[in-house]
Amino acid sequence: MRVLAIDPGFGRCGVAVLDKRNGKEAWVYSDCIETLASSPFEERLSTVADECARLIEKFKPDALAMERLFFTSNQKTAMQVAEVRGAILHAASSAGIPISEYTPGQIKSATAGHGKADKKQIIQMIHLLLAFDKRPKHDDEYDAIAVGITHLAHVR
Amino acid sequence: MRVLAIDPGFGRCGVAVLDKRNGKEAWVYSDCIETLASSPFEERLSTVADECARLIEKFKPDALAMERLFFTSNQKTAMQVAEVRGAILHAASSAGIPISEYTPGQIKSATAGHGKADKKQIIQMIHLLLAFDKRPKHDDEYDAIAVGITHLAHVR
Repeated sequence: MRVLAIDPGFGRCGVAVLDKRNGKEAWVYSDCIETLASSPFEERLSTVADECARLIEKFKPDALAMERLFFTSNQKTAMQVAEVRGAILHAASSAGIPISEYTPGQIKSATAGHGKADKKQIIQMIHLLLAFDKRPKHDDEYDAIAVGITHLAHVR
Repeated sequence: MRVLAIDPGFGRCGVAVLDKRNGKEAWVYSDCIETLASSPFEERLSTVADECARLIEKFKPDALAMERLFFTSNQKTAMQVAEVRGAILHAASSAGIPISEYTPGQIKSATAGHGKADKKQIIQMIHLLLAFDKRPKHDDEYDAIAVGITHLAHVR
């Protein structure tokens, strides 16, 4: 079972590929796709979507997992993140990959054991759970890894 | 100058191709892409995005125009429409086509001459302005045509 987990964004987008082998989670790949604030929005969206499509082709995941998006006070940003999500959903759907979404509470529970865990606790748990060839550098990368762990915990 | 104008949606998505030749607008094509409510959301999104990509390939527009999205009381629907918009933006951006967005007020002004025009007045003006080989059947189709007229009025 292999999942491509994504923390969608147009400035920074965390991506992670995790496997579950014999009931144990394994890190395969993670990164943070970054785009330039000076580029037009649709170019940033395309950079993210194209990179996700490339990861789907390269790693052949069985599923795509994303955090469920909730509206925040900044509706313009929320809408642009939704647009990026749409382009990623299209890439996954075109490749015939099922999509799962998880709430922040589900992600915290699955990763750190309770729904009120903070970022630091989640990062600690990720390091207890997984061995990395390359240490994640960005918060967004850890967020994607946490989504991936959540998916592997929910799927049997 | 040829524009592909889109009234984005995942249940019904209006699309229109309009030309401006010697300062005069001409209807080329319009339709309403419909998807089944019983299909998974990402399948509906992909149906709309793939059809838009097909129209870009077939009609080779110089620009893509969409109505600017505002948040409504139904945030779930607004977010899903934003996701569809994102998949369409990606298709346009991948084809190197510039994207323009217009507010409802701009669309009403450009089509019917004032920002408070109702749907009936807009449809009347569309029929005064354009000759159709095939009469539009859906409101969403008229909405897309109105977006296209707005774009042609704004671009010289």
